[in-house]
Amino acid sequence: METWHLARGYRYAGVHSGLRPDPNRFDLALVVSDRPAAAAGVFTQNRVCAAPVRVCRERLPSAEARGIVICSGNANACTGGQGMRDARRMAECAAQGIGCRAEQMLVCSTGVIGRMLPMEVIEPGIAAAAGKLGVDADALARAAHAILTTDTRIKVSTRSMVLDGTEVRLTGFAKGAAMIGPNMATMLAFVLTDAAVSPDDLAEMAPQVAERSFNSISVEGHTSTNDTLLLLANGEGRRLTGVALFQFQQAATEVCADLARAIAADAEGANHLITIEVEGTRNHAEAHRIAKAVADSALVKTAIFGADPNWGRIVSAAGYAGVDFEESDLTLWLGEFLLYERGKPMPFDAAQVSAWLKNNREVAMRLRFTLGPPSLGRCTFYTCDLTYEYVRLNADYTT
Amino acid sequence: METWHLARGYRYAGVHSGLRPDPNRFDLALVVSDRPAAAAGVFTQNRVCAAPVRVCRERLPSAEARGIVICSGNANACTGGQGMRDARRMAECAAQGIGCRAEQMLVCSTGVIGRMLPMEVIEPGIAAAAGKLGVDADALARAAHAILTTDTRIKVSTRSMVLDGTEVRLTGFAKGAAMIGPNMATMLAFVLTDAAVSPDDLAEMAPQVAERSFNSISVEGHTSTNDTLLLLANGEGRRLTGVALFQFQQAATEVCADLARAIAADAEGANHLITIEVEGTRNHAEAHRIAKAVADSALVKTAIFGADPNWGRIVSAAGYAGVDFEESDLTLWLGEFLLYERGKPMPFDAAQVSAWLKNNREVAMRLRFTLGPPSLGRCTFYTCDLTYEYVRLNADYTT
Repeated sequence: METWHLARGYRYAGVHSGLRPDPNRFDLALVVSDRPAAAAGVFTQNRVCAAPVRVCRERLPSAEARGIVICSGNANACTGGQGMRDARRMAECAAQGIGCRAEQMLVCSTGVIGRMLPMEVIEPGIAAAAGKLGVDADALARAAHAILTTDTRIKVSTRSMVLDGTEVRLTGFAKGAAMIGPNMATMLAFVLTDAAVSPDDLAEMAPQVAERSFNSISVEGHTSTNDTLLLLANGEGRRLTGVALFQFQQAATEVCADLARAIAADAEGANHLITIEVEGTRNHAEAHRIAKAVADSALVKTAIFGADPNWGRIVSAAGYAGVDFEESDLTLWLGEFLLYERGKPMPFDAAQVSAWLKNNREVAMRLRFTLGPPSLGRCTFYTCDLTYEYVRLNADYTT
Repeated sequence: METWHLARGYRYAGVHSGLRPDPNRFDLALVVSDRPAAAAGVFTQNRVCAAPVRVCRERLPSAEARGIVICSGNANACTGGQGMRDARRMAECAAQGIGCRAEQMLVCSTGVIGRMLPMEVIEPGIAAAAGKLGVDADALARAAHAILTTDTRIKVSTRSMVLDGTEVRLTGFAKGAAMIGPNMATMLAFVLTDAAVSPDDLAEMAPQVAERSFNSISVEGHTSTNDTLLLLANGEGRRLTGVALFQFQQAATEVCADLARAIAADAEGANHLITIEVEGTRNHAEAHRIAKAVADSALVKTAIFGADPNWGRIVSAAGYAGVDFEESDLTLWLGEFLLYERGKPMPFDAAQVSAWLKNNREVAMRLRFTLGPPSLGRCTFYTCDLTYEYVRLNADYTT
């Protein structure tokens, strides 16, 4: 295991509450900050959002968050007024367990949509987790396990750096949409730091961090009801400003990009991690739109699965992204292979490219436009291929 | 075979030119109007569009169109300046064959993207087709065969009606995106009528007809480089106006809706034709956005394939369609089964619904909103499920 540089002043627990039938499977996580922390979040844009998302939205940004309680296996989405009461109750139980006000606790859920939470097991589960909090990597790993649904491994990324003469650490962990987007109540991510950051600064950077990380992965383009990124900063003393604040945001973005890439790479059923690089558009938003259109195309994804260098699918997906360009503005590489140059198909050895696709689990496609300076409009996007296994896993999830 | 009411004054041919290797497979169609006809079109919105689409756009609307020449097996897309010259040359050869000016001919192609047209077989093929034109159903069927790519059957729909005291007929035929969207150069549709309609009226109604038919089907949401709908009206005498013109537009919409539904039903690899009914939104555009989000969701499509009544996927797809609503605005039925009522999950027998999904090739889902009067904001949308066979067919198309 790589060395983790854990942010100071946080404790973690992951336990089996009984929400999941398998007694060996953790299903409830608790994260606690020893001090009140600045906190901000970014949430799903879905009109249908889960009860815990509503509760977090009410409470953020905050200057005095004390922690997060998370359950997996049940999304607490589409659950009406009872769902809202249950989400609030989860926060209340966690607050009792660690000794703070209920409003200081944040709450997340992930799993099947449309089922009521089994509060009779969750309440004692939260109490048990509060009794098992630890500060070390093992404790973090238990919490990181407890939030997983169909992920095959935990996703953790940390950073350590000196800002304004002080060592600052960031701890990030996440669970994925994975390829199989189980009922869509999918992505959760948490970034905890011992840096001192104001709630307002944290709230301002949160969507920017998400834009360059979690908003640049796609499995099947289905926005979850539960997607949540929470940032907590519990540092004391002088708050970061200026360049130091900017460097901190960069580090938070790197942590989230690590987690985002890990989510795409752990897509169950996927044979390939696909990296899509778009450059030379007029701005980032255009590059992002094009990358997402390519990433969401079932035809592109099945072609990669089939090791078929069917570049017309990539070019035409770019064409319907809603960005104005002429074909002569576009050049396309698949790996090192130049397939399409300024609007013209290039001769290439299809068998060679196909063999390359077969032999590499990670493949990159690069779309270079001549709409603006290359350094300006650019985006890196991650997705995965569409396989038999994806269909199998998703064809039979609830029944 | 059902009885076709063919529009008068049109001749058809379908031949094997050699563009496709199989000598028994037609690959070139010619449609000729005996008189100059009003003509209008609707084309792909893709920035990357095929050469024949560009040629048609230049020539439409027109008051003196004489016909359409169509080849299948090659899209003539992403083919640069040579592709434009080839598309114009196809029209020229057809014009020579029937004796009119080149500008009076329209041209379409469908098939693989990024390959140059084999003009050495297409030119004699067009001449051969011009020598084999016929007016009867068999001739139409040959033309309808010649435009197919991966479709398993021809798609024809006709109407006959009396407008302003005159019998009017419409002949429609199309080829599909099918489920397997071969390189995306997919949908072509043609509606020919012996009604007298002005070019301007035809041009105005064309996008409205498409909106209620071809824009309401989706296979994987990948917009083709070649999608084209052409309307030709060769009637003489007083042109339709007022109510009669409106009735004509209704009939044209019905013909196109028949063809659209046939395209979704003929989706190769598909086990289910899925009808999505949305009603009670503020307007048609909202209903259409929601229906399309549900139709394009890989998670919804795999669930139907797996006979899994996973209604959370449908509700959450509606939630990210970009339409403002509250969960309590939405009620959902799958077939006759009420699964979600005004924001609350309803108890249902999952095994019973699953059995119903297994035993029915055609399944309907109905999303009723309380955002406006039911009759106002509504849309019917067709799609199909996502199956192993879809992945197999698309994983290996060009290689």
